[in-house]
Amino acid sequence: MTGVLRPGHAQLRVLNIDEAARFYRDVMGLVETGRDAQGRVYLKCWDEHDHNSLILREADHAGIDFIGFKVLNEATLDQLERDVRAFGLETERLPAGELLETGERVRFRLPTGHLFEIYAQKAQVGNGLPNVNPPPWAPDADRGMAPTRLDHCLLYGPNVTANKKLFVDVLGFHLVERILGPAEAGEPEIGLFLSCSHKTHDIAFVEYPEPGKLHHLSFRMPTWERVLRAGDIMGMNKVPIDIGPTRHGVTRGETIYAWDPSGNRFETFAGGYEPYPDSRTITWTFDGFPHGLDFPQGKLHESFLTVVT
Amino acid sequence: MTGVLRPGHAQLRVLNIDEAARFYRDVMGLVETGRDAQGRVYLKCWDEHDHNSLILREADHAGIDFIGFKVLNEATLDQLERDVRAFGLETERLPAGELLETGERVRFRLPTGHLFEIYAQKAQVGNGLPNVNPPPWAPDADRGMAPTRLDHCLLYGPNVTANKKLFVDVLGFHLVERILGPAEAGEPEIGLFLSCSHKTHDIAFVEYPEPGKLHHLSFRMPTWERVLRAGDIMGMNKVPIDIGPTRHGVTRGETIYAWDPSGNRFETFAGGYEPYPDSRTITWTFDGFPHGLDFPQGKLHESFLTVVT
Amino acid sequence: MTGVLRPGHAQLRVLNIDEAARFYRDVMGLVETGRDAQGRVYLKCWDEHDHNSLILREADHAGIDFIGFKVLNEATLDQLERDVRAFGLETERLPAGELLETGERVRFRLPTGHLFEIYAQKAQVGNGLPNVNPPPWAPDADRGMAPTRLDHCLLYGPNVTANKKLFVDVLGFHLVERILGPAEAGEPEIGLFLSCSHKTHDIAFVEYPEPGKLHHLSFRMPTWERVLRAGDIMGMNKVPIDIGPTRHGVTRGETIYAWDPSGNRFETFAGGYEPYPDSRTITWTFDGFPHGLDFPQGKLHESFLTVVT
Amino acid sequence: MTGVLRPGHAQLRVLNIDEAARFYRDVMGLVETGRDAQGRVYLKCWDEHDHNSLILREADHAGIDFIGFKVLNEATLDQLERDVRAFGLETERLPAGELLETGERVRFRLPTGHLFEIYAQKAQVGNGLPNVNPPPWAPDADRGMAPTRLDHCLLYGPNVTANKKLFVDVLGFHLVERILGPAEAGEPEIGLFLSCSHKTHDIAFVEYPEPGKLHHLSFRMPTWERVLRAGDIMGMNKVPIDIGPTRHGVTRGETIYAWDPSGNRFETFAGGYEPYPDSRTITWTFDGFPHGLDFPQGKLHESFLTVVT
Repeated sequence: MTGVLRPGHAQLRVLNIDEAARFYRDVMGLVETGRDAQGRVYLKCWDEHDHNSLILREADHAGIDFIGFKVLNEATLDQLERDVRAFGLETERLPAGELLETGERVRFRLPTGHLFEIYAQKAQVGNGLPNVNPPPWAPDADRGMAPTRLDHCLLYGPNVTANKKLFVDVLGFHLVERILGPAEAGEPEIGLFLSCSHKTHDIAFVEYPEPGKLHHLSFRMPTWERVLRAGDIMGMNKVPIDIGPTRHGVTRGETIYAWDPSGNRFETFAGGYEPYPDSRTITWTFDGFPHGLDFPQGKLHESFLTVVT
Repeated sequence: MTGVLRPGHAQLRVLNIDEAARFYRDVMGLVETGRDAQGRVYLKCWDEHDHNSLILREADHAGIDFIGFKVLNEATLDQLERDVRAFGLETERLPAGELLETGERVRFRLPTGHLFEIYAQKAQVGNGLPNVNPPPWAPDADRGMAPTRLDHCLLYGPNVTANKKLFVDVLGFHLVERILGPAEAGEPEIGLFLSCSHKTHDIAFVEYPEPGKLHHLSFRMPTWERVLRAGDIMGMNKVPIDIGPTRHGVTRGETIYAWDPSGNRFETFAGGYEPYPDSRTITWTFDGFPHGLDFPQGKLHESFLTVVT
Repeated sequence: MTGVLRPGHAQLRVLNIDEAARFYRDVMGLVETGRDAQGRVYLKCWDEHDHNSLILREADHAGIDFIGFKVLNEATLDQLERDVRAFGLETERLPAGELLETGERVRFRLPTGHLFEIYAQKAQVGNGLPNVNPPPWAPDADRGMAPTRLDHCLLYGPNVTANKKLFVDVLGFHLVERILGPAEAGEPEIGLFLSCSHKTHDIAFVEYPEPGKLHHLSFRMPTWERVLRAGDIMGMNKVPIDIGPTRHGVTRGETIYAWDPSGNRFETFAGGYEPYPDSRTITWTFDGFPHGLDFPQGKLHESFLTVVT
Repeated sequence: MTGVLRPGHAQLRVLNIDEAARFYRDVMGLVETGRDAQGRVYLKCWDEHDHNSLILREADHAGIDFIGFKVLNEATLDQLERDVRAFGLETERLPAGELLETGERVRFRLPTGHLFEIYAQKAQVGNGLPNVNPPPWAPDADRGMAPTRLDHCLLYGPNVTANKKLFVDVLGFHLVERILGPAEAGEPEIGLFLSCSHKTHDIAFVEYPEPGKLHHLSFRMPTWERVLRAGDIMGMNKVPIDIGPTRHGVTRGETIYAWDPSGNRFETFAGGYEPYPDSRTITWTFDGFPHGLDFPQGKLHESFLTVVT
């Protein structure tokens, strides 16, 4: 319990910024909150209070530039910076304002090759509801798929067990679930679901030869009924779906995996249980993992292991 | 509105009667209500009142022996018998008691090759709730997948438009939705969803060269949440799933298709709208049908067109 | 099975036509489809196809002018007109067009004092979805409470058993559930839930000394989750609620009772089972009825018996 | 973020231990895990891993003996003990084993008069699912109301703002929502909802003249549909309901309040949003609070303010 709060922002590379902005704003139903001088587009989920959680940057190939976690305060930021350095990673400070309405960020590269950031400040713009006597939801809750928040991301790269060490020993995450490789390979840990809260995961990693890859960015849906509604909207908009709707065995979550117009996979995710730091870790064997991925079907959808950006 | 009420019973061929009985009783959660001298096993859904809706018969190949619809009364039975004969089909009377607790049945072979029956009497054994001041559900509502009723069946065979003529002109069904074949084939009607009520379908047919085939028998689930629970139970019991959970475009229903231990496909089905005889028919073009089958994915799962028993 | 299809329209008296139109259109989320020379406002639920199901008429006191059921065709209309006369009631023909886009209506006064109509024609304006390859819902499905259809009404007046005779013997309804009066009064039938379909009720009556009163007009919600969403919208708009959200024991339906700005009670209703003409009637004793009204609470909310318009 | 994890156990006084054990085990659906030499009965929710979360003690009047929060480890326990003493409260150590399978507890009396405990150890007995390749739920998930965990409690007593100071400044909770008293009284804080996690509340307090009172103990339900199922079970078992099912404005949670056989109020609670320490506090004015209690009805149910044990 180091003061790391939650995934606060992620920057995606998209092939066409206008098409991507339209997709995340009008089809997914995020709220566009700004554009910067570089042409980046900033969005947030309707029920988030901070200024942005998704930043889109036009590039010639899709993928994730970086993921940032909000921490409790500046003191936490400073302490974690020291701890990460002590762990042996180089860190970099990005100045306040480099991302719109966002304070100074401490950035470092994970063993899996991903750029990871922590920051303590982001301007609060609210969720469209008053702070006094609020109704339970705002009109934006019915616009597009309307996820409530950025939930987590799953990243692919090499050396996931080195990531585990960093997240558990330094950043204070707990290992909620894990996937093992084949018995003939000695059952190495190839999938790790880590939480800094009592969510089933705030970040997850899967072993993959190429560093810095994105498997999916996940957005939170309030109910299984709203996951289906999201699926309906995907059908209406010809959004290509990878898997679902279905239930994960891993996390017990309810899910659809689909692709944005640039080919970045995203998830609409509901449910799941609430683990605590004192919970035992759940293990999925390689043979058991098909049910971990798609509990009803027990099917190891090939694309889960192979398609990343 | 001829007095045909609903699909009342279906007899399935299963490869191992004990395994099949165990599956439908313990995994699907039906109530076993009897066995007869031939060794057939009789079951009903918990919220059905009549003695049986599913009859299992051991055979060396899977499939459906016959489907039976309950009609309002004996006068309706007699009238429909005359009407079916006038339409040009031969009919046969099966004596009361040939099926347990079931009255005389009038049987005829559909143009698609299926044996179809109508009957007016089946002993009512109740749904486990009192007729006075009942609670909304019985303990059996939580046992297994626990469908509430036999909902409909989808049958494959040749000459579906001849079936349509019989069901619409003689038996009083209305055509709720239909699927057309490819444009290059002149868009023939290859799928027909027919209702004798305000359900989206009480019976459906798809054009197929081989007569008398079963695509699936469908069981009603109260909600989308209970469809997922059924999917969980399928996962727990390694029941092979064909498609789902997902939403059909056709009927808007929420669905999982899966296979029983003999390879007969069944469906756990919820939702759908409520058409009336004055509703316009909805048409799915061949190119549009992938969304008709799986609205979110818009995917023409190959097995839908090819795997039958 | 006489060819009576469903409740097709109801005309409500409202104290302020603009306020009422605004309420039913913007808060309840109905679609306004027209106004006539008399100043009446016509609305329909998003998933209804006929031109109107709710007509508002400004008057100095609230209540219901009439309820109309659609029948299969003109022949049915003529036959039922004859049957109703043979039963001993006078009937009146209202000309086509007296209600916008609606054919000739046969009107008669029920023993309970209500004006009841049957008609065979109403122009179809559709539900906002195409007839070819439609998505499962239209944007209007998220506007306001967004019921899918007019479901039923509950009317209060004297002589409900005379109504029962008319509806069962002449109009072809079946008695799905009934409420009995106190044992000391000999358990008279004081509440009757009648269906011309496999809905749990298309119309219902409760014994009351004053004739022609409205208890509530009911609108269909697709799910229990959408009943809560309707309740949220009631809260946001300070719509006064009578009872709910809760489950009825009667019909098993999920419900909220609330009042429109004129004091007419309406219901947002989901769920319920599907009875058929061969179902046994369920009986609620006077002592058991509190659970029939509000199954969880088992509470006889006083207003149910006393507040009508 | 001091290392306080969650409400881990509560000890209730019940008037008849056998009746109470039967109620919590068979009607609520908790799992009985032990009885001790004093005759206390220990229970847990099916999805909890620790040995017990509810302890029942027979007494001549109902109410709560104490509530205990689990903390991260022994070091946290020691530190918080020091911090609480530094705050000015006396603390007491209860020996390991005084509660079955539970380690040493540090107990102190809150300004509102309640006994509050923290502890670091409780034996893990698991949730009935394997740690390797688990299905998403166990058979106990369908037994009785089947809450997944003890969620929070609402306690009544004097000096709630002193409690706030303790919980925020010493124990590391954040103030998620608050209720103000009447304007004429200067809008004092009379209700406080405090979280040590990203639940909307782990504990709550309402100002009340008499110290040490229990308003309700809350149990977590996975969905709104399961809240209704709990309500059905209450109806079946004639469990007296106070309020609901409905939605709270406060926390947005979905709820039923009801009473156990001894008159202790409990809640079946689902939904709610997920606040973090950096979230702004939501305020309910005295006039706005009726919607905070029952958002759809906007009704200040009298019993909320007056009935406690």
